[in-house]
This record gives sequence, structure tokens and C-alpha cells, in this order.
Amino acid sequence: MARVVVDVMPKTEILDPQGQAIVGALGRLGFAGIADVRQGKRFELEVDGSVDDAALERIAAELLANTVIENFTVSRAEQ
Amino acid sequence: MARVVVDVMPKTEILDPQGQAIVGALGRLGFAGIADVRQGKRFELEVDGSVDDAALERIAAELLANTVIENFTVSRAEQ
Repeated sequence: MARVVVDVMPKTEILDPQGQAIVGALGRLGFAGIADVRQGKRFELEVDGSVDDAALERIAAELLANTVIENFTVSRAEQ
Repeated sequence: MARVVVDVMPKTEILDPQGQAIVGALGRLGFAGIADVRQGKRFELEVDGSVDDAALERIAAELLANTVIENFTVSRAEQ
């Protein structure tokens, strides 16, 4: 079993209202110096040896991310 | 400005119905060999030099994560 991490983030040209809400909340809570926050998703997959990188790319692009508005990265975690 | 990444994941003893739904969908779509999926959140913060590690820990613990059911990690991205 190997662990694979897929990070999915909104594209930079896409507005991120969740992140903007966090920026506003931080200001109200007294945390200064936070210029921007963007919120995305992190998936941790446990995969067996039969799953190759091409399959992982397809899983990320077709199921985990909406590639119209999101970018994703796939990385195998060190064991 | 520095980039800080906060990863928030459900604790291992917490059920993750979103992740289980993805496992089921992968099976139906013909992707074999995925034993488990857990879904969490990834936050990317742009912070200025006045924000120290203690402040980042408080931001993650008090605002970004629900520490009853979630673990978080804070890491400064390399420039």
C-alpha cells in the first residue's frame, strides 16, 4: 500500500469566496498580516501497487477535481 | 510575503463519509486498487513577515480546523 496525496485548489483567476470569508474573519479576530487565503481540498488515497501514475492522473482529473475551475497536483508520499 | 500551507484532515478515528463515497464511486467507474480515501481541506495563506509560527498555530487551531474531529499541519512553503 502506498499513500498518494491529491491537492485540489481553485485556479488563481477564480474568485474564492470561502477564502475571502476567512480573510475577513481573521481581521475581525485580531490576526493582522494575512493578505490572502485560498481554500481547496486535500485527498489522501491508499492505493496498491497496481495503480500507476496515469490512473492517478485520471482519478484526479475526472473525479476529484473540476478542471474547469480547479488545478490539482498528485504526489506519492514517502513511505 | 510568504506562503503558508495548512492541511486539515479528519482524525483517523472519525468516519469520513465523503471519502467513502469517493471509494465507492471509483469502484463503479472501474478504478481498482484504491483501498481508502480520506478528504480534508487545504488552505494557502499569504502572510507578511509579522506573522510568526505561534500566530499561525492559533489561526489553524481556532479558525481553520475543528480540533475535536480534525488534525492539522502548518508548513511554510519554500520561496
